[in-house]
Amino acid sequence: MAIVVGVYGATGYTGIELVRLLEAHPEVEIAFLTSESSAGGSLRRAWPQGPDRPLVAAADAPLAAVDAVFLCLPHGGAAPVAARALAAGARVVDLSADLRLADAAAWERWYGTPHPAPGLLPVPYGLPELGREALAGAAAVANPGCYATAVVLALAPLVRAGELAPSGPLVVDAKSGVSGAGRAPRTDTVFCEVHGNCSPYSPGRRHRHVGEMEQALAGCGLEPGRLLFTPHLLPTDRGILASLYLPVADARRAAAALAAAYAGEALVEVLPEGELATLAHAVGSPRAVLSATPLTPEMLLVVSVLDNLLKGAASQAVQNFNLMWGLPETTGLVAVRRAA
Amino acid sequence: MAIVVGVYGATGYTGIELVRLLEAHPEVEIAFLTSESSAGGSLRRAWPQGPDRPLVAAADAPLAAVDAVFLCLPHGGAAPVAARALAAGARVVDLSADLRLADAAAWERWYGTPHPAPGLLPVPYGLPELGREALAGAAAVANPGCYATAVVLALAPLVRAGELAPSGPLVVDAKSGVSGAGRAPRTDTVFCEVHGNCSPYSPGRRHRHVGEMEQALAGCGLEPGRLLFTPHLLPTDRGILASLYLPVADARRAAAALAAAYAGEALVEVLPEGELATLAHAVGSPRAVLSATPLTPEMLLVVSVLDNLLKGAASQAVQNFNLMWGLPETTGLVAVRRAA
Amino acid sequence: MAIVVGVYGATGYTGIELVRLLEAHPEVEIAFLTSESSAGGSLRRAWPQGPDRPLVAAADAPLAAVDAVFLCLPHGGAAPVAARALAAGARVVDLSADLRLADAAAWERWYGTPHPAPGLLPVPYGLPELGREALAGAAAVANPGCYATAVVLALAPLVRAGELAPSGPLVVDAKSGVSGAGRAPRTDTVFCEVHGNCSPYSPGRRHRHVGEMEQALAGCGLEPGRLLFTPHLLPTDRGILASLYLPVADARRAAAALAAAYAGEALVEVLPEGELATLAHAVGSPRAVLSATPLTPEMLLVVSVLDNLLKGAASQAVQNFNLMWGLPETTGLVAVRRAA
Amino acid sequence: MAIVVGVYGATGYTGIELVRLLEAHPEVEIAFLTSESSAGGSLRRAWPQGPDRPLVAAADAPLAAVDAVFLCLPHGGAAPVAARALAAGARVVDLSADLRLADAAAWERWYGTPHPAPGLLPVPYGLPELGREALAGAAAVANPGCYATAVVLALAPLVRAGELAPSGPLVVDAKSGVSGAGRAPRTDTVFCEVHGNCSPYSPGRRHRHVGEMEQALAGCGLEPGRLLFTPHLLPTDRGILASLYLPVADARRAAAALAAAYAGEALVEVLPEGELATLAHAVGSPRAVLSATPLTPEMLLVVSVLDNLLKGAASQAVQNFNLMWGLPETTGLVAVRRAA
Repeated sequence: MAIVVGVYGATGYTGIELVRLLEAHPEVEIAFLTSESSAGGSLRRAWPQGPDRPLVAAADAPLAAVDAVFLCLPHGGAAPVAARALAAGARVVDLSADLRLADAAAWERWYGTPHPAPGLLPVPYGLPELGREALAGAAAVANPGCYATAVVLALAPLVRAGELAPSGPLVVDAKSGVSGAGRAPRTDTVFCEVHGNCSPYSPGRRHRHVGEMEQALAGCGLEPGRLLFTPHLLPTDRGILASLYLPVADARRAAAALAAAYAGEALVEVLPEGELATLAHAVGSPRAVLSATPLTPEMLLVVSVLDNLLKGAASQAVQNFNLMWGLPETTGLVAVRRAA
Repeated sequence: MAIVVGVYGATGYTGIELVRLLEAHPEVEIAFLTSESSAGGSLRRAWPQGPDRPLVAAADAPLAAVDAVFLCLPHGGAAPVAARALAAGARVVDLSADLRLADAAAWERWYGTPHPAPGLLPVPYGLPELGREALAGAAAVANPGCYATAVVLALAPLVRAGELAPSGPLVVDAKSGVSGAGRAPRTDTVFCEVHGNCSPYSPGRRHRHVGEMEQALAGCGLEPGRLLFTPHLLPTDRGILASLYLPVADARRAAAALAAAYAGEALVEVLPEGELATLAHAVGSPRAVLSATPLTPEMLLVVSVLDNLLKGAASQAVQNFNLMWGLPETTGLVAVRRAA
Repeated sequence: MAIVVGVYGATGYTGIELVRLLEAHPEVEIAFLTSESSAGGSLRRAWPQGPDRPLVAAADAPLAAVDAVFLCLPHGGAAPVAARALAAGARVVDLSADLRLADAAAWERWYGTPHPAPGLLPVPYGLPELGREALAGAAAVANPGCYATAVVLALAPLVRAGELAPSGPLVVDAKSGVSGAGRAPRTDTVFCEVHGNCSPYSPGRRHRHVGEMEQALAGCGLEPGRLLFTPHLLPTDRGILASLYLPVADARRAAAALAAAYAGEALVEVLPEGELATLAHAVGSPRAVLSATPLTPEMLLVVSVLDNLLKGAASQAVQNFNLMWGLPETTGLVAVRRAA
Repeated sequence: MAIVVGVYGATGYTGIELVRLLEAHPEVEIAFLTSESSAGGSLRRAWPQGPDRPLVAAADAPLAAVDAVFLCLPHGGAAPVAARALAAGARVVDLSADLRLADAAAWERWYGTPHPAPGLLPVPYGLPELGREALAGAAAVANPGCYATAVVLALAPLVRAGELAPSGPLVVDAKSGVSGAGRAPRTDTVFCEVHGNCSPYSPGRRHRHVGEMEQALAGCGLEPGRLLFTPHLLPTDRGILASLYLPVADARRAAAALAAAYAGEALVEVLPEGELATLAHAVGSPRAVLSATPLTPEMLLVVSVLDNLLKGAASQAVQNFNLMWGLPETTGLVAVRRAA
């Protein structure tokens, strides 16, 4: 019998990808899709190739009819919906930032306003390759940020294996397509501002994902404060490529440790020695792809790529959903890779 | 039991899309992939997200082991392979231009050299929505050109319904992404020559697809000579958008005739009145999408869009393959739409 | 002694190009630049490579201090400023649509609201290659629309020379970069909506420039009603390419007439027979470039390209300004071509 | 009286930019342009907006008629031409890599073959902001590489001022448009391979410009071996953005030192505190633009941007030419900024 789900915020870029995946998911039936701006209209307005499904306002969504909800809502707006859904007995995969930090005070530091529903915290962090145990059967899961997924996947195995040098900055130079900025018109995402351009923003320790990354890596044993994370906007629509410059004791051993850590994973791949990951390895795919290249005996370059709307959002949400319900982790996802 | 197939020319853009579709096709097993330039290597060289399958030279392909072959080869080079395959008892879907024209003399006129295997002609033309009868059980099918598919799908129903004015030019202004030019490096497809540019080429009656279009439309009752087809190269990778400016007796009635003609089709869609087709309706999808807009009472604009690598090549080849083998026509293709 | 000018609306894409040209103009001194959204700030906010000039609100602009103003304002908002400037003794080059139609009733039909200052009409139409006489010494000039410039330049000589067939539609399929839509964030100009896409809009006789084109061509002898103009948005930032499919009595003679008409022009070029105009011929240049290609003995393809921000806006404004003041027409413009 | 010059390799992307600058240079007259592939044709074949100038084979260039030559030739091919030109009494600006390394043995290490004309070495290194003394009156100047210019401009003042920490890697993550790869068709610069992609290459200490950078910085006092330079190909045509992550004693003081170093320079700009350099600051301009942002008290981010075809090649060549001949350094270049 199908698991009945609802999607809040179905007309954003992430929402569309998620609906696409859920439509093809063999164990899922979609009960409702919400959109505040397009309530009363059809999903096809936002997604020309999509099915002709009706959109409802969040307030009108039949929460009682669903087993689970996915929240593709702006930060600050998701937690209250999560609380209502949990109260109605539905499980929650929250793709916003609201449930990612375990601590409401930390959330307030990074997001600048009090946490909208601190009573919900903490919630398991849905990066399955980092640890699946807490996800099985969970009532709510916090789906990681796109940058955080790329960076934590690259660093966690090295931290755990003790391969990082004990001190020194961990430089992460990240590049992202524009869809990460969302669909709402903004001055800086107008076509002519991005075309032919490349621009850094929020350098060092200013980007909100730094808090999320360091929380996840603290769980692996990394002391906070060493990450220097500088994202750059690329003139393309999808994909994240993070270049990590890492001081290590032994670069070849560290590269081997990274490969070994993901040897059994279906949705994270480490390229053979000598190859470098590119956006083309990951765009359209639910898999993250990593490469590890010794630059000197004591400096390792890890390149971590993923599709920000898939492994960085929607397909990882499905991966988490599968784990929450005890389904095989790649259910509904393997076809994506083929079709990418 | 699976139908065993081989793909010639698997590392071009069309070949890759075709292998992707065949990998997901529930009735197909791939026996071999050929590549002259990469024989001995892996498909992953050309397709970073693809499976690690070996590539062989065409001369080494085990023709005796397969039930069917797909030919993604340059024109002039496909027909001899088709002849060998047919002699070995394999059916053929030819994605090149070699078998599209029924008449070797016409082929020589458009392609400038004698036809490489005139004894094979004629072969059924694999545009299923134009006529499926000849495709069921066929030993060989000629897969249409990408431009020809876009243009013939737009015109054929209007010709058949007698909606076109009896004389006057049929102006087709087509725009295409660069992948139609293939993967081999060329002076005019270097990134910097295309980025920021848009360029017409082969205007009027010079493009080779004009012969193919007029042959297909002659079968519907259109006298040759009226088509004026002018393609333009777009600064993007995939997709064709053809704008057809058509003199008609009654533009609203003609628009209705177009919609009616495809009402039952799974892989051709006509948009509701008032909407215009865009590349975004079709890129990544095995469906062609059409819109019909009266410009004046006697002039109709039809916009016809498709993905040149899918409905313009690989997914149409699978559609034809399904019909040849008596499988449901969309087998292995519906998932593409979901995943696009 | 320098001609002192002010620019209204200096931070839009057209405004920036215009300031760039005026900065390099040997006879011009800029007295003020206005911007409602950035008043009090510097031009460098909008134009990173620009000079550090202050921006003022339009209401604070010292009209008494200038000899001339350029209006890069939204339609409906320019005419009242033009009236104020003329009253203050300043000449006006209006780059908006407000002064382009000679007749306030026609303006209301195309723009949907009463004309904001009908007493100003009519004003000379600033397409110098169509006729320079009325521009010399004019107090106000209406700078043509970008699409109108491309289309009228292609058609006017053929109309005047009597080369067009006496009836039949004049099909114009135009393609434009996104900067024509302006800088303000809009749902349809967000990067991800344009990248990888191509979309027709306002087909046939719906676009407002049709009225402007037909007014200009009526002056050459073309009866209104035959133009079918369909623009398409391209995934690039700058440039217009219009493909005109024209019924003519003798295509070779018509092509020769077009070349002859512009033989002496500095800022319109007709390519040699056999070449086709592309965006790359015109982007960054103050020149329009045309090609004329017989498709059949009685159908001529004219491709007309220009930079929508230069010959379609800012450089044409300078060309008009030069004529108004009796300066050589290309003053301040030839360097642009070299530097493009 | 004009300085008469010739340009070898005039039809590549750099050659075209150089001819454009030289055409507008008030003290220069062009005597010949060479192209092996297009000898006998016109420059307009390669540059649609360019002048209709004839191209000759290098062997036919009238060396005796010129005062100076610019060499836009592949590495290995420039030095022999330089030797011939010098022997004929012409001065040389070599835009290839042939004369950049002072030591033929170092050249062989980085380029893999013996130096083609070791007797010419050493030649002054033409990065004027690093030191102009050796350039005045020089017979030959080695024009720096595009990446080297971006990186050395960012690092040299910090090295000289003693602001860098005495040890630790200097991580440089660079991003470049595709024109740096040249105009000849290559598998990896085909449009579809670059569009939507971003790919690292030659990471760490593999890129040939590392040798050039370290030689230039050694002259400022930096011990070789600390640079880790990783370039990435961007989906755009022009521009380099290098992000440098630098260990320093005092990040604010180091930022101030960088700003102070270039306070008097016309063609290098350091942005005000709080701003980050983007490609849009530099594309089309002869200026490099830098920003300096403290990430922590001991880590400084310097972003260095330039147009790889201008400050990274052609406009720097003109800057060097001006210095060689005792002309004001920005002659013929300031207009470029205005027109960019």
